[in-house]
Amino acid sequence: MSFDLNAVRRYFPILEWGSRYNRDTFTNDGVAALIVTIMLIPQSLAYALLAGLPAEMGLYASILPLVAYAIFGTSRALAVGPVAVVSLMTAASVGNMALQGTAEYALAAITLAFLSGLILLAMGLFRLGFLANFLSHPVIAGFITASGILIATSQLKHILGVSASGHTLFETIQSILGNLGQLNVITLIIGVSATAFLFWVRKGLKPFLIGIGLKPRMADISAKAGPVVAVVVTTLASFAFGLSEHGVKIVGEVPRGLPPLTLPVFSGEIWAQLFGSAVLISIIGFVESVSVAQTLAAKRRQRIVPDQELIGLGASNIAAAISGGYPVTGGFARSVVNFDAGAETPAAGAFTAIGIALAALFLTPLLYFLPIATLAATIIVAVLSLVDFSILRGTWAYSKADFAAVLATILLTLGLGVETGVSAGVILSIGLHLYKTSRPHIAEVGLVPGTEHFRNIKRHDVLTAPHVVTIRVDESLYFANARFLEDYIYDRVADCDEIKHIILMCPAVNEIDHSALESLEAINLRLKDMGILLHLSEVKGPVMDRLQKSHFLQALTGQVFLSQFAAIKALELPDVAVS
Amino acid sequence: MSFDLNAVRRYFPILEWGSRYNRDTFTNDGVAALIVTIMLIPQSLAYALLAGLPAEMGLYASILPLVAYAIFGTSRALAVGPVAVVSLMTAASVGNMALQGTAEYALAAITLAFLSGLILLAMGLFRLGFLANFLSHPVIAGFITASGILIATSQLKHILGVSASGHTLFETIQSILGNLGQLNVITLIIGVSATAFLFWVRKGLKPFLIGIGLKPRMADISAKAGPVVAVVVTTLASFAFGLSEHGVKIVGEVPRGLPPLTLPVFSGEIWAQLFGSAVLISIIGFVESVSVAQTLAAKRRQRIVPDQELIGLGASNIAAAISGGYPVTGGFARSVVNFDAGAETPAAGAFTAIGIALAALFLTPLLYFLPIATLAATIIVAVLSLVDFSILRGTWAYSKADFAAVLATILLTLGLGVETGVSAGVILSIGLHLYKTSRPHIAEVGLVPGTEHFRNIKRHDVLTAPHVVTIRVDESLYFANARFLEDYIYDRVADCDEIKHIILMCPAVNEIDHSALESLEAINLRLKDMGILLHLSEVKGPVMDRLQKSHFLQALTGQVFLSQFAAIKALELPDVAVS
Repeated sequence: MSFDLNAVRRYFPILEWGSRYNRDTFTNDGVAALIVTIMLIPQSLAYALLAGLPAEMGLYASILPLVAYAIFGTSRALAVGPVAVVSLMTAASVGNMALQGTAEYALAAITLAFLSGLILLAMGLFRLGFLANFLSHPVIAGFITASGILIATSQLKHILGVSASGHTLFETIQSILGNLGQLNVITLIIGVSATAFLFWVRKGLKPFLIGIGLKPRMADISAKAGPVVAVVVTTLASFAFGLSEHGVKIVGEVPRGLPPLTLPVFSGEIWAQLFGSAVLISIIGFVESVSVAQTLAAKRRQRIVPDQELIGLGASNIAAAISGGYPVTGGFARSVVNFDAGAETPAAGAFTAIGIALAALFLTPLLYFLPIATLAATIIVAVLSLVDFSILRGTWAYSKADFAAVLATILLTLGLGVETGVSAGVILSIGLHLYKTSRPHIAEVGLVPGTEHFRNIKRHDVLTAPHVVTIRVDESLYFANARFLEDYIYDRVADCDEIKHIILMCPAVNEIDHSALESLEAINLRLKDMGILLHLSEVKGPVMDRLQKSHFLQALTGQVFLSQFAAIKALELPDVAVS
Repeated sequence: MSFDLNAVRRYFPILEWGSRYNRDTFTNDGVAALIVTIMLIPQSLAYALLAGLPAEMGLYASILPLVAYAIFGTSRALAVGPVAVVSLMTAASVGNMALQGTAEYALAAITLAFLSGLILLAMGLFRLGFLANFLSHPVIAGFITASGILIATSQLKHILGVSASGHTLFETIQSILGNLGQLNVITLIIGVSATAFLFWVRKGLKPFLIGIGLKPRMADISAKAGPVVAVVVTTLASFAFGLSEHGVKIVGEVPRGLPPLTLPVFSGEIWAQLFGSAVLISIIGFVESVSVAQTLAAKRRQRIVPDQELIGLGASNIAAAISGGYPVTGGFARSVVNFDAGAETPAAGAFTAIGIALAALFLTPLLYFLPIATLAATIIVAVLSLVDFSILRGTWAYSKADFAAVLATILLTLGLGVETGVSAGVILSIGLHLYKTSRPHIAEVGLVPGTEHFRNIKRHDVLTAPHVVTIRVDESLYFANARFLEDYIYDRVADCDEIKHIILMCPAVNEIDHSALESLEAINLRLKDMGILLHLSEVKGPVMDRLQKSHFLQALTGQVFLSQFAAIKALELPDVAVS
């Protein structure tokens, strides 16, 4: 067997960009990595908290997974690591199996990352990336919005300094209200002021910096460091005033050092329990990741390879599992920052990993006094930008079916949790699509006088003859609508004894599956019993090729006409009457 | 509120045909009912046996349900009652909950009929008949064939006189082989000869009777009485030689009298356990019933109303539940006999019910000595006519996706049981349909010289210009293929810097859903970043109406052309080059 270099190149995109790596690229990647590192330190701690995991697992999930993606990924700008929605899904999934804070809980999160990695790798190797297409845009939009609300609500307890739990909006709010007696005023002050500060950083800092003379690009980048300022200030305050003795919850001891070597649980029972969640996390992570990667690649006229992205993300998650992390994916906001900061190759991710590794080695003792309320504020501000109800207005105007899918996804995600919400959204959009195509638009058409064109007899003044009925079906014929067509034709001919010819006009029929073929055979046979001939017109090439492999064309009582005009000339003219 | 007579007529088709009932119709219905009654007596006993129920429940399921259908049903020829496939499904469903022969088992079957009746009624009232469309023809054909094999195999134990159980082919065969030591030779002789006789009746009796001078129609009808001959002869033999003392299993005591009044169990837990099975039984029963009803109606240029059929079958099943029966539907073979025997209205079914009621009142003592092997022979001969592997050959030639759906349905039904088999078949056909439409046929087209027609540049010598690319998509654009189109266009333009215009030619695009709209917006935006204009041509009316409700047309960098030729004239000519 010869050594297939192209296959190696396909699976290791690093060989391609690595060979052209130079000092300029290095500088650009390095600057981007520095900015992303500063942004990622508080985020990784916060998202670990959201997932119900110890803070250091957020750091660990931001080291080896980034290196793995740099080797296998195809996007030049994607910033992989812990993200809000996947962290929430991890909490929902693992929370069903173990209590937060226990070793079993952390181990289940590691196993979830491993399973998710295997699923992504398998999808990549077997080129199953198309599965992600079954998450329609409205379902994703609804899901992300609802997740943002759920996440923000779940963090309210940290702002208030009360304990609470729950996987649905109602449970969480009820739990917070029930424990409102525990309210800690100092925590509330820290939480509210950090949130307000971060909102101002997001909206007002950049114009302010430009106002005092910074260049727009520099102002933009500086504004990204806002969360670090919040972290530093509140940590110092917490340390100086001994706030933890006044009931303010702090991060506490974060182990210092590089990620430990970890292994997932190899238990059929646990894998079976986590499998459904792992599939959802994989697909949602992939969709989020590939959307941002594609958007950024297009801006520089680059390409990403979705199936290889699956392999890159799969490798990242397996790397997370063996180094004490939890499920990761490409984050939207961080990738945009990475791109804007000038990242040119996936090496920027590897440099970010080095930054986070240094933080894990040297900065963790400094995080001891960091108030948890500050991290909650970081999360709230980050996720509220995900909440966007405009999809409801957009789909309402455009398509009621899509609106129903969005609304159901939002309500079910809020009311029953992330996994039920997104699953119901997917099932509903598939169901609605099948429902729509199961009742295709069918028009009876006639000849527009003086032309060779045919139009709907209900909308236009067209010529028809009483003994010829032409039916145009505006949909592929397949099992879901085969019976509908049968019913339509039987109803049409049952009403009228004059009919001698039925022409099925097929310019929009892109496929006829075996069910529809059998329906056509049945229609042909029953019309024959009634003394009516069945004809086809304007059948597409590939559809005709397929029909020729069956016995239908031999059994067909009528003819197949290349054009509808030829059909009418043969069957109807010269005795044309105006309908 | 005024009294809506049309609504009453819609829900009570009996008012329509009943008002025109006369002596001729009565005679024809009566003759048909007599023949169907003779056929139904052994069948109803046999199918009850197949369902694991006492023989009399088969008779009960053939009385009140037929009257209910006569009131609510729209088919003039459908013969409702116990059928093979639904009996097998009843056994599979109820067998999970209770032991055969117990009172709980019978009560579960009654409850299943009640639930199935409610589901059918609800589907009828909410016009959900389209749900049955999701059972594709190949899946139904595969399921019926596999069920036939399962049923025939399950009856082998009665022919051999051994005990056995199992819901899959493997389990059943293993169980029979394991108990082969119990083989009863006399039972075997009765079983084999009854089977052989019934096969001969089916194939050879009619030609034989015609040969000895009977008219074809008379010969045909007489041949239907064959099973009764087998029943009478083997019952007499069993009685005369005291075969039950030699280990031949006989029907034994069958309670004499009209059906008792029964009630289903009203338990949330039991309903939850039976619900999935009840849905499958309802849908499969409905599909089987409506197919034969439609075929027979078309022969006389009559119509059936599928949504009202749901109500008719729902009423039948509720009638079964309150009169000691079990799930029923319209049977294929029996309906054809009813039709051929001249049934003109649903009254024929009511007359059949009277016949079976008389049998329940007076004939049951005569059934005491009837060997069970004879009933098993009746079932085997009836169901082997359902087994038809030609669907495998047909789909293999016509469509590999349909072939895969048939094969999976057959193998999973045989290997894992009826419910898993048919569910997997449905999921697989929906999945394959979505997969196919998720990778639509996309062709790049050019102008056929001297015409206004456009054809695939890969198949025809056509004119193109290097700066204009026309892409024709042969599929509706929706969530499953939105990303595919994006990928296709990005790949196409990434390869080539000359491109200035992309025209999306849409004559086969019957729908653009919100996901696809967002993809088009993204494509438009990214092409704009690259300095490429996006145009549309030949957009269908309803699709255009929808697009006008969005902001897409305002954002579109290019134009919407009514015809592709107009687009080319505007963008490409006069500097046309041959590609």
